[in-house]
Amino acid sequence: MTSPATPEQSAPVALPRTLTQNLGQFDGQQVRLQGFVHARRDLGGVQFLVLRDKSGIAQCVGSGLHLPLPESSVEIVGSVKAHKKAPGGYEVQIESLKVLSAAIQASPVEIPKMEWNVNPETMLDYRYVSVRGLRERAALKVQAELVFAFHSYLRGEGFTEISTPKIVSAGAEGGANLFKLDYFGEQAYLAQSPQLYKQIMVGVFERVYEVAPVYRAEEHATSRHLNEYLSLDVEMGFIEDEEEVMELENGLLAAIMERLKLTCAAEFELVGASIPEVPAHIPRITLMEARALVHEKFGHTVGGKDLDPEAERLLCQHYAETQGSDFVFVTKYPRAARPFYAHPEINPDGSISSEITRGFDLLFRGIEITSGGQRIHDHAMLMDSIRAYKMNPDAMTGYSEVFKYGMPPHGGFAIGAERLTAKLLGIANVRYARAFPRDRNRLTP
Amino acid sequence: MTSPATPEQSAPVALPRTLTQNLGQFDGQQVRLQGFVHARRDLGGVQFLVLRDKSGIAQCVGSGLHLPLPESSVEIVGSVKAHKKAPGGYEVQIESLKVLSAAIQASPVEIPKMEWNVNPETMLDYRYVSVRGLRERAALKVQAELVFAFHSYLRGEGFTEISTPKIVSAGAEGGANLFKLDYFGEQAYLAQSPQLYKQIMVGVFERVYEVAPVYRAEEHATSRHLNEYLSLDVEMGFIEDEEEVMELENGLLAAIMERLKLTCAAEFELVGASIPEVPAHIPRITLMEARALVHEKFGHTVGGKDLDPEAERLLCQHYAETQGSDFVFVTKYPRAARPFYAHPEINPDGSISSEITRGFDLLFRGIEITSGGQRIHDHAMLMDSIRAYKMNPDAMTGYSEVFKYGMPPHGGFAIGAERLTAKLLGIANVRYARAFPRDRNRLTP
Repeated sequence: MTSPATPEQSAPVALPRTLTQNLGQFDGQQVRLQGFVHARRDLGGVQFLVLRDKSGIAQCVGSGLHLPLPESSVEIVGSVKAHKKAPGGYEVQIESLKVLSAAIQASPVEIPKMEWNVNPETMLDYRYVSVRGLRERAALKVQAELVFAFHSYLRGEGFTEISTPKIVSAGAEGGANLFKLDYFGEQAYLAQSPQLYKQIMVGVFERVYEVAPVYRAEEHATSRHLNEYLSLDVEMGFIEDEEEVMELENGLLAAIMERLKLTCAAEFELVGASIPEVPAHIPRITLMEARALVHEKFGHTVGGKDLDPEAERLLCQHYAETQGSDFVFVTKYPRAARPFYAHPEINPDGSISSEITRGFDLLFRGIEITSGGQRIHDHAMLMDSIRAYKMNPDAMTGYSEVFKYGMPPHGGFAIGAERLTAKLLGIANVRYARAFPRDRNRLTP
Repeated sequence: MTSPATPEQSAPVALPRTLTQNLGQFDGQQVRLQGFVHARRDLGGVQFLVLRDKSGIAQCVGSGLHLPLPESSVEIVGSVKAHKKAPGGYEVQIESLKVLSAAIQASPVEIPKMEWNVNPETMLDYRYVSVRGLRERAALKVQAELVFAFHSYLRGEGFTEISTPKIVSAGAEGGANLFKLDYFGEQAYLAQSPQLYKQIMVGVFERVYEVAPVYRAEEHATSRHLNEYLSLDVEMGFIEDEEEVMELENGLLAAIMERLKLTCAAEFELVGASIPEVPAHIPRITLMEARALVHEKFGHTVGGKDLDPEAERLLCQHYAETQGSDFVFVTKYPRAARPFYAHPEINPDGSISSEITRGFDLLFRGIEITSGGQRIHDHAMLMDSIRAYKMNPDAMTGYSEVFKYGMPPHGGFAIGAERLTAKLLGIANVRYARAFPRDRNRLTP
């Protein structure tokens, strides 16, 4: 159990800890494991214990043991033996079992038996322990890896990370759905997006990104919305038009999926999902063409000015079937479906379109995961737009002032981390792609 | 101005953009620059323009030019010539100057002339443009790099990033200094720290970290506090005691400083600051010894149970002078200076200390930049502590419940990103280490 003592070091050296995923490297050897009692079974003469650590699970077997309650933290020393029926193909024969921290009662949910969408409210009520489930943590691991891929790729492309205020004096998107806050006696709000701030920071670092929570006080509960979510925000200056922004996002998504293949294959296998291939050039279709397509091919008529969820689903079905792509950019959104800061399309004759913008959405497996576009950088054009949206220009000076100082042409987008995670893993409700979701009725845990 | 056309490609290919920091690689060649007019001077027959891009500044010279207002975005094509007096040793002789986006009025602050601490309120009022200053952005660049080093190092050490709620039903630190929020008619608060959530997540991923804003509704305005700041949080399970946590932080700080040397040498040079050496083993001193030391060596008597700012300064002076270390861990904090979740010290006889905890602070150049320690993981011990702090156990079940389920021994710490940045660069007021600070009187921009 100890390494040979060196002349300088006569005290016993502890056996290094082995992660369960690496058991196969120690066939026939003694290992020290740490983790949680995932499951246990006492057959009288022999006891089985499934140990869960951050890397996976391992079947352990011994005799004469008193097994602690599930979820207890334990340390096991034992020898590794190949065993076809054990998870991973190896079993640990327990030599000693030490309880590091005993669970003092049974978990309110049976961690090994949980499935997504079974008793969802109960699982969320007990999230402090239900989040230990293998599928639950798989979603959060995938999210952590895709967020890190977001950081890494953008840094490689010359982006600088920023940290902008979440307590703001007005909403960037126009004022609806804001959580109100008392800020030393003043009315303040939680930011819906870092839109203004990331635009300001284009004036500093040219290319910026932020990973931070944003807030939407939406009353309705749907399977695709959260009141607090992690927004992956990008903004880049010195662009020609929104095409450059889409190209950047195309490369970013490819890098994210490559990283997930390297780091999360086990998680995708566990939940039975596949990591999508990102085309070198994600297909594009204008919004008007997309509306026509779903009408002509599927007989679905879309009301309003945008796409509805059914149209998003059908359009993705079309591109999956005809081009094998899980992604499609919907471009050239009409002004009526975009905020005031969306840059208008420039007509072939050089005039400014009053109807069409350079805004785009990205759809993935039936749902919008990104809104983006080129933004207005010209102060006069911005003020015209603010007036056209019947907004009060005086109330907007906190936003508009910076555009007096040479803001370069720029654009960007935002990805909702939880929604992308959920679609990747086939999680029906986006709440399970967040550790501790906030919704209309949920403020705990 | 164009590359030679290939047979497949007869349209002219634009000259790739060159960053100002790379001018020396293009001596005698034509380059295309993009950026902002940092400064300009028209001598009649000849015009000088200092161009600022994300990488630095470049002196450009031409004739017959109409120079746009400072801060305008421009594109310059010209040829590079060695010039001893120009920044970086090279000058660009302008062949063409294109205004991408004209500033329409003079900036309210002269960007090239700004110094930290000159008219601080004015600089913060106009932060949307004053943040473009070279010293201002140096601070934010350094912070971005140290945050990325935080991510990278911890991932290498087996940590998983988490994203936890900032809208909470109660404060982790006991209820003081909380911003209140109306959450669909319920009283909610902005999180002071992710303390509870990162502890819960130790039960999932064993080692976790978070980079996210936290909130303190502190009324007083000091040079070391912000009402919203970026917290770099770490929590790790399966530890023996707080020593492992300090060792981890020691390695983390070394990695951060290594990265800053690689990526931010120019920024440190600009502000005249030096990147500290991190000792392989940062000195430790217990709080009681530290209080005695500043009394005996400097004649400074500390009231209360903690160190005061003057004692922090003197203690750092002592370690800088005697051991050449800019860092010192102050350990074994008394319970009276620590929150209820701090793990008590275990006396040599195995009994639990009622006076001393396993909490520590890390001081750097005269100020505390970290609070950390081992946390209580045993449910009974936690409930005893809650009662001893005269807190209501029923109100704490949202925190305490998870400790019924085998939480392993664990500990962690948090670093305030802005405070560390400010101390690294010698910024006297921490507000200048945040892009858009929030303080008692400031909610904009």
